[in-house]
Amino acid sequence: MMKKASIKDVAQLAGVSIATVSQILNNKGERFSEETRQKVVQARDQIGYVPNLSARRLKKQNSIILGIVVRSLALPYFGNLVQQIQDHLPENVTMSVMSGEGEQADQAVYQLMNSGASAIIVGSQLTAPKEIAEELKRRGVAMVVLENHAKLFEADSVHAKDFDGGQLAAKHLLSLGHHHVVLLGNQRYTDNLFQRAQGFTETMLAGGGTVSEVKTHSLSKQSGQAAAMAVSITKATGVFALNDDLAIGLIAGLAKIGLHVPTDISVVGFDDGDYAAFYQPGLTTVHQPGDQIAKAALELALARVADSQAKRQVAQFDVNLTVRESTRRQ
Amino acid sequence: MMKKASIKDVAQLAGVSIATVSQILNNKGERFSEETRQKVVQARDQIGYVPNLSARRLKKQNSIILGIVVRSLALPYFGNLVQQIQDHLPENVTMSVMSGEGEQADQAVYQLMNSGASAIIVGSQLTAPKEIAEELKRRGVAMVVLENHAKLFEADSVHAKDFDGGQLAAKHLLSLGHHHVVLLGNQRYTDNLFQRAQGFTETMLAGGGTVSEVKTHSLSKQSGQAAAMAVSITKATGVFALNDDLAIGLIAGLAKIGLHVPTDISVVGFDDGDYAAFYQPGLTTVHQPGDQIAKAALELALARVADSQAKRQVAQFDVNLTVRESTRRQ
Repeated sequence: MMKKASIKDVAQLAGVSIATVSQILNNKGERFSEETRQKVVQARDQIGYVPNLSARRLKKQNSIILGIVVRSLALPYFGNLVQQIQDHLPENVTMSVMSGEGEQADQAVYQLMNSGASAIIVGSQLTAPKEIAEELKRRGVAMVVLENHAKLFEADSVHAKDFDGGQLAAKHLLSLGHHHVVLLGNQRYTDNLFQRAQGFTETMLAGGGTVSEVKTHSLSKQSGQAAAMAVSITKATGVFALNDDLAIGLIAGLAKIGLHVPTDISVVGFDDGDYAAFYQPGLTTVHQPGDQIAKAALELALARVADSQAKRQVAQFDVNLTVRESTRRQ
Repeated sequence: MMKKASIKDVAQLAGVSIATVSQILNNKGERFSEETRQKVVQARDQIGYVPNLSARRLKKQNSIILGIVVRSLALPYFGNLVQQIQDHLPENVTMSVMSGEGEQADQAVYQLMNSGASAIIVGSQLTAPKEIAEELKRRGVAMVVLENHAKLFEADSVHAKDFDGGQLAAKHLLSLGHHHVVLLGNQRYTDNLFQRAQGFTETMLAGGGTVSEVKTHSLSKQSGQAAAMAVSITKATGVFALNDDLAIGLIAGLAKIGLHVPTDISVVGFDDGDYAAFYQPGLTTVHQPGDQIAKAALELALARVADSQAKRQVAQFDVNLTVRESTRRQ
């Protein structure tokens, strides 16, 4: 059997060091001249050298797979989040993204763990967060959660102050004279959603208002649209939707049954995602700093990989209200 | 040194076969009783068995990493595409997603290849498609491109009939009496975008119309909005934007300078993504079947992994025009 070509053979033929070959073939050879790069590539092609990738990964401890689990990439908030994480990824880190809710999210975490992830950012609510956190810890896999998992005392966590966001929405509607309002919620509350709902409801009740809750199947525009009739029969004058997509869908659904936003009914969203400013009417919504959340999640995950014994880290971000055209005085 | 615990030790302690342990610990043990699963998990915990993941990947040839490169996950079209691919992923396939345009896309492909991807779906235009296709082939990595790479004769390819889409947009505007129109294009044309633009321009000119081209920095809503003034000074009565995001941004930008769609100017988009129906006014747009494109790309990629010598496959999808409220008779 012919001996398999090695990186050493490539280096000898090209007349350069092994380190040089390695850097050039791993696309990290910007600092070498075009001539040197050409020599290395030609030498590689001439002797047919193929790196043994999995073997290399075993050795090269600083090559990291970062797993990310989000609710759905079809929700723009998460598409942006993942894009932001990628934009800040160090060179030696590869990103592996999965999505799912409930048990699917649990499975996605296990699958990423089994395929060699060193760290996993979890942006979806897990059904068994404690068990999963323990399992990851035992296997030496770092985890950062993007939910306020109430019972997850030990995991690194990054999130916005969702409770405060709900409060801001309630105060805004109260200040405009809306006392009978709808909370456009969800069948399945993650801890973040629960906090938003709680902050809203407590504040509204404390301010003398009444809150009707309408639950939707998912946080999508389709679900928001489908809720329009249920919202309209409450005769409420204001709505707090738990995310922008629900709000946008609701506004379209209300238009179809002859109700105009904000003339007939005011709507507040949550996220202040990319579409909020472009939608007509411009969406009044609670702004959470998605870009900062993405960056902090990446930083905490890599810090945890670097030092698994470090103290638990929690990054909480302030929210604020962006007032546009979807709300007005009652 | 203590001998490292092996899967055999776990099997012995639990009193089951190695295959049973393997399946249960890989979350594929649904068919076993809860009792058996408990026994295996307890045995694993008792002796502290940790699978050697990278070594396992070397052996387990049917465990596949699928790489995906898209322009940006912040563009809803690609967020949906990736989500669709994931929804149809077989159990033994893990998805690794990266994004980038131009040379970043080239680098993303190399990075996925270097991190062990068996197949890569490329939804972003490469700057060196031929070289990359050859390199992947040499390394035995399957590739499916989602662009009509004009010069890439050998790669498996999935795409919509973009030229036809441009034609449909032109015919629609002509039929409504719009003869002086704007093509809202992009600085950097991928082959798909080029086909759309070409189909539109040829058809419009053949129908006696004139086309002014306005180029944008990117395909985002922000770029569409920024183009509003440039579009308005052409005095055109109709616009074909190369994607929905540009169209939505443009409509918002036109509103800010007092031009109403469709009263003052008609706008046609391309994609018929999730937002087109929810936007107000509802967007008239060329529908491309993103779900089918995603599924076909996955199928072709896995087929190529299974048989690297198979004949080249090309899947082309029909497009059609969805007429909503953003266009009207001139």
